[in-house]
Amino acid sequence: MSSIFTKIINGEIPSYKIAENDKFLAFLDVNPNAKGHTLCIPKQEINKIFDMEEDLYLELMAFSRKVAIAIEKTIECKRVGMAVVGLEVPHVHVHLIPLQDMDDMRFQRKTSLTPEEFQEVAKEIASNL
Amino acid sequence: MSSIFTKIINGEIPSYKIAENDKFLAFLDVNPNAKGHTLCIPKQEINKIFDMEEDLYLELMAFSRKVAIAIEKTIECKRVGMAVVGLEVPHVHVHLIPLQDMDDMRFQRKTSLTPEEFQEVAKEIASNL
Repeated sequence: MSSIFTKIINGEIPSYKIAENDKFLAFLDVNPNAKGHTLCIPKQEINKIFDMEEDLYLELMAFSRKVAIAIEKTIECKRVGMAVVGLEVPHVHVHLIPLQDMDDMRFQRKTSLTPEEFQEVAKEIASNL
Repeated sequence: MSSIFTKIINGEIPSYKIAENDKFLAFLDVNPNAKGHTLCIPKQEINKIFDMEEDLYLELMAFSRKVAIAIEKTIECKRVGMAVVGLEVPHVHVHLIPLQDMDDMRFQRKTSLTPEEFQEVAKEIASNL
């Protein structure tokens, strides 16, 4: 069965896209720790990040860096945090999270946005790429 | 004033070293989320990871990947998680954390090790590099 992220890549599940190329996709986390919380994923369905071939891993990290810099330009925050966990969805995803405090990194305190707000944030981050 | 990590690099503060080259250092976090929790840092004192030049950032990520793979070979875990936060020490550090569950990523539940255990873990991870 394809992962939920593969369904997003294939357009079977809608998403608020920020950046896309032939190998990677960046889109907003719909259950965000904070406004602007973004996921960067490889299109290839790989479970664990450190199982990726070094070249593809480094390309994902370069892609994530560009998106993180755009998030920093868009969202007022102390800095953008990065996390790779993967205990829930077995498809590599790099969390990029605008941080005000440590709780923004803990995946417990969540933020709600309306569809219009998600759309607006995705558009603003994309415009800062 | 130099960061606590610069003092570790300079040997003013002792650490349980895992890997070192001219640009980067990997050593055990002395207040670990889990046994094997490692920090990878650039020797250059830079505050925010996404302010690093792309080349140096990618070298740090490649260095961290090698260390993560060695941790995975050493410590029984579901996978190795990665986190970059930086709200406390203004010197880039990549956390590599052997995960059993989500709480291992939250920086709240901590593990105690004796100096002998730290030394043993550092040595084992280094031997798997």
